[in-house]
Amino acid sequence: MRHEQHEATWKQLNAHIDEWVASSKTHTSEGHVASYIPELANAPADILGICIMDSEGNTCLAGDSDFRFTLQSISKVFTLILALMDNGEDVVFSKVGMEPTGDDFNSMLKLELVEPGIPFNPLINAGAIAISSLIAGDSTDTQVERILSFFREIADNPSLTINQNVFKSESDTAHRNRSLAYFLKDNGVLDREVDDVLRVYFSHCSIEVNCTDLARMALVLAHNGVDPIRNQRLIPRRFVQIAKTFMFTCGMYNASGEFAMNVGLPAKSGVSGSILTMVPGHYGIGLVGPALNRKGNSTAGVHLLGILSQEFDWSLF
Amino acid sequence: MRHEQHEATWKQLNAHIDEWVASSKTHTSEGHVASYIPELANAPADILGICIMDSEGNTCLAGDSDFRFTLQSISKVFTLILALMDNGEDVVFSKVGMEPTGDDFNSMLKLELVEPGIPFNPLINAGAIAISSLIAGDSTDTQVERILSFFREIADNPSLTINQNVFKSESDTAHRNRSLAYFLKDNGVLDREVDDVLRVYFSHCSIEVNCTDLARMALVLAHNGVDPIRNQRLIPRRFVQIAKTFMFTCGMYNASGEFAMNVGLPAKSGVSGSILTMVPGHYGIGLVGPALNRKGNSTAGVHLLGILSQEFDWSLF
Amino acid sequence: MRHEQHEATWKQLNAHIDEWVASSKTHTSEGHVASYIPELANAPADILGICIMDSEGNTCLAGDSDFRFTLQSISKVFTLILALMDNGEDVVFSKVGMEPTGDDFNSMLKLELVEPGIPFNPLINAGAIAISSLIAGDSTDTQVERILSFFREIADNPSLTINQNVFKSESDTAHRNRSLAYFLKDNGVLDREVDDVLRVYFSHCSIEVNCTDLARMALVLAHNGVDPIRNQRLIPRRFVQIAKTFMFTCGMYNASGEFAMNVGLPAKSGVSGSILTMVPGHYGIGLVGPALNRKGNSTAGVHLLGILSQEFDWSLF
Amino acid sequence: MRHEQHEATWKQLNAHIDEWVASSKTHTSEGHVASYIPELANAPADILGICIMDSEGNTCLAGDSDFRFTLQSISKVFTLILALMDNGEDVVFSKVGMEPTGDDFNSMLKLELVEPGIPFNPLINAGAIAISSLIAGDSTDTQVERILSFFREIADNPSLTINQNVFKSESDTAHRNRSLAYFLKDNGVLDREVDDVLRVYFSHCSIEVNCTDLARMALVLAHNGVDPIRNQRLIPRRFVQIAKTFMFTCGMYNASGEFAMNVGLPAKSGVSGSILTMVPGHYGIGLVGPALNRKGNSTAGVHLLGILSQEFDWSLF
Repeated sequence: MRHEQHEATWKQLNAHIDEWVASSKTHTSEGHVASYIPELANAPADILGICIMDSEGNTCLAGDSDFRFTLQSISKVFTLILALMDNGEDVVFSKVGMEPTGDDFNSMLKLELVEPGIPFNPLINAGAIAISSLIAGDSTDTQVERILSFFREIADNPSLTINQNVFKSESDTAHRNRSLAYFLKDNGVLDREVDDVLRVYFSHCSIEVNCTDLARMALVLAHNGVDPIRNQRLIPRRFVQIAKTFMFTCGMYNASGEFAMNVGLPAKSGVSGSILTMVPGHYGIGLVGPALNRKGNSTAGVHLLGILSQEFDWSLF
Repeated sequence: MRHEQHEATWKQLNAHIDEWVASSKTHTSEGHVASYIPELANAPADILGICIMDSEGNTCLAGDSDFRFTLQSISKVFTLILALMDNGEDVVFSKVGMEPTGDDFNSMLKLELVEPGIPFNPLINAGAIAISSLIAGDSTDTQVERILSFFREIADNPSLTINQNVFKSESDTAHRNRSLAYFLKDNGVLDREVDDVLRVYFSHCSIEVNCTDLARMALVLAHNGVDPIRNQRLIPRRFVQIAKTFMFTCGMYNASGEFAMNVGLPAKSGVSGSILTMVPGHYGIGLVGPALNRKGNSTAGVHLLGILSQEFDWSLF
Repeated sequence: MRHEQHEATWKQLNAHIDEWVASSKTHTSEGHVASYIPELANAPADILGICIMDSEGNTCLAGDSDFRFTLQSISKVFTLILALMDNGEDVVFSKVGMEPTGDDFNSMLKLELVEPGIPFNPLINAGAIAISSLIAGDSTDTQVERILSFFREIADNPSLTINQNVFKSESDTAHRNRSLAYFLKDNGVLDREVDDVLRVYFSHCSIEVNCTDLARMALVLAHNGVDPIRNQRLIPRRFVQIAKTFMFTCGMYNASGEFAMNVGLPAKSGVSGSILTMVPGHYGIGLVGPALNRKGNSTAGVHLLGILSQEFDWSLF
Repeated sequence: MRHEQHEATWKQLNAHIDEWVASSKTHTSEGHVASYIPELANAPADILGICIMDSEGNTCLAGDSDFRFTLQSISKVFTLILALMDNGEDVVFSKVGMEPTGDDFNSMLKLELVEPGIPFNPLINAGAIAISSLIAGDSTDTQVERILSFFREIADNPSLTINQNVFKSESDTAHRNRSLAYFLKDNGVLDREVDDVLRVYFSHCSIEVNCTDLARMALVLAHNGVDPIRNQRLIPRRFVQIAKTFMFTCGMYNASGEFAMNVGLPAKSGVSGSILTMVPGHYGIGLVGPALNRKGNSTAGVHLLGILSQEFDWSLF
């Protein structure tokens, strides 16, 4: 995209975003707010907010863009990056695989089938739990603090914190994640204690943000690890490359292939109804719409990204 | 078996048991003592002991028959019976299935495949954990005490106790069982807390006995729930019928079919190398030989039971 | 069972069988006639017939006992026996396993999971197809003739023939069995050509009988391989033992465990709604009731056998 | 890439390609030629050839670039496109899914797990067989002719033909594919007869090409469906987008994720040791190196593409 083209896109974006959000918002009625964590179940079902940020930090905001929510699975992208920075590729990929797969009801089954008993990839729950155990730090507290510092740095927002109600709610109800973690422990994938690893995992899932924070974090990935606003490298390019590849092939649960075909951008969604995506080289995008389709992605959010990708021909292919 | 036939069998048993134990004992070298629980790994690999008890309480003892060991999976037969006595068939079979299946490395996989997410049967680990949660009692302590009382009653031995070292060893290392239990919890199979259920489960697995205790317990099953020595009904016949059916179809892990074909008696084995079996209407049998084959059953023990079944034509078919 | 006891049982059987058949017949409305083979779909849904034969050949007949039907999966018991007589245990159990398991929608999945790629046991479809390939004979025709001769001998009925309409109907629609057979071929389990093996398999499934034929065949198994009427050994006892063990642990599809617990006799069912069972040492039993429950067994037939087992305390445990 | 940049790349490519091919060729010794089809087993194990073609049709050739081989799984990309052109997206995606997954020993298992029984995606064998049945045509002959015409058009080579020896060899030995096809038939995925569908499938797998043909075909995809040499649209852009998305997420069997991370280009490999890939907007690339790694991809070929991607920063992320 040349400069003039960016100008045109930006203008058109700002002119139409409200109407696109409005038309997408009608799709909230097709979905349901995640109910498995009590705290998430309280989110309003009918909202949709988005922030698109360009490389100078200008934002295009629409809908309920100041609604606050927790990162949930979106955090997995950044803990993967931090684990890579802490351990290097070889260590990380001795604990998780590289192959795309959906993450659904039968993910334990998949854990049992893949040789040699490690999770398929770092974005499914089992993989992300393994990644949580790899974050450097003598104690759980240190690990959590390092994660929080790293996320604040990427988001350029020192006020990011963990939503303690969500954290507590997740810890209390996560039988399935606990089952996965003990399974990993039994297979020798986790060096730390299960309770400690899960505390780290639930902590980063419970970091609270808004759409602008998401867009800011995405912007750094869109620019291959350099923050274009502060003009500062925050992540080695190779690790962004790894993260974006996983986002493209398996960032949207069991609808990753469909999203890749219809939107065509690296993205990661969370059960809070949030999606982080980007136009490589250009924009960071964050959105939230808590009503989820049966694959676990924001119904309105996926619809809105479909419009944007179509309208501006953003698909990578 | 008429009286004279019993006399003849008993005479021949006593005449040959030492030689049969001796020849079976050579098979201990083909197996390995269970190593996954540190306390079990200390058992001597080359021993074999057996007790056969007739309906008047006479015993035919041979080999290392006074070696003490923990019940492990053999306890599952009696907790199933207690759960049936506490809850009735309908409640029990709403939490576990009735269908035979092996229990091996891929048991979680099977848990995920069977509808509607309940364990296949009460003798696989997942099923036995579900059964532990069904034992009546306001607290874990009460549950454990009731189990211990029941086992003492069946064994007619008030001195049975839990081996605390084995209990502790199991609790500390049972990542896989913990994973299974949280999976069951997630599927709504367990009404109690996972930690509590596992405490009950590890407690009954850790009850310590010798071959004579096993034979005594088996004798009650051989007589359909009536203790023929004290001439007292201890278990409703229907629940013994249920227990024996499961023992016949899936009491010997993934070698249950092979054992049914070659020995043809209801039996249950444990990773301590113990086997409880019986000649219905006649004898209770308990044996121990800690060296296990790769299916998890005592190598020498299975061999010895093969000889006995052949010699006396004990197979049910 | 002593002589007097037999007399009493036989008398009571004849006195009540009509009423038991009548009350069981009402359960036909809970089931559905198998529809996957067009020829089977034509069977009347509301009938129930039974024949019980004692060791002198006396028969207790009730209901639609002269209805003719095809053996379907019941034939697997006798081809297993013939394959054992032709090849011995070692060869047979190098091609099929010994472990009980249900046979259902996910049987291919199970084929892929069991090591080293052989069917779990000879009574699931995959196992029975493997067994069909083991019947001695230079050509498919010879194999089929030998099977037919053997079945005629066991049933003491030289007029048994293959129902060509059913045979053709099965051959034309058996995509799933063809898929299984090619999978077995790919795994090196079948030495013969897939089309030939399936021709043998569909042929023995299509042998037509009535309840009396079934009872006559069962009688030989009830007497451990000796025909008590002609006083002639037809099958080595060991092979009957093997067959009865499999019938007890996995003869009733995914309801084998339930049937073992509630009826407690070795049995084999077929999708024609037929069941062959026996009271070991005494009676051969054949019945037919085409309406099947969702596990694939005759609804009315299972009900009737439950009454009989209860009434005469026939359960083996 | 601007014009000057292309000039520089092209110059450097031509200057170094021989040395890169030479260093990659040493990796042929780490792999093995596919042996499951006799005809493929005859390919020389130690060769490596490549053709890179720019948008004006200039070629950079190196190694054994005139070796002839069959398309095998690479053909799946173009039959998918033809099926989309014949039927539209809705029909095609009612028969195959959109989600990435590896394709390996357990692909039948996966077929059984995904609801509602359709293959995960069009690039695994089961999916490609389903796609073969969707190619328009009254008869198998017509279908095969239409495929051949389409492939000739894309390759701009009217002399492409089916290698009849390979076709025959595949047809005779494909027990697994036959098993898959009957499984699909049983699930209602195939409207045509299994034998006919497989004839079409084996035919397009057996189309013979060289590296230049592959590069020419890739060039059309690199330019979104327009042949840049003849300046003619051959494929609607949307269908190229779909094909490239699948190539990126699952074109390299169970190493698709690893390849995406290390090379970062849409690609498809075949068991003949061939790989078709492209630099979007610029080059079409075809290579062949018959020695395969254990994931089924050309060892030397994957190595060579790694060098090129690194050297010229071709990764999409």
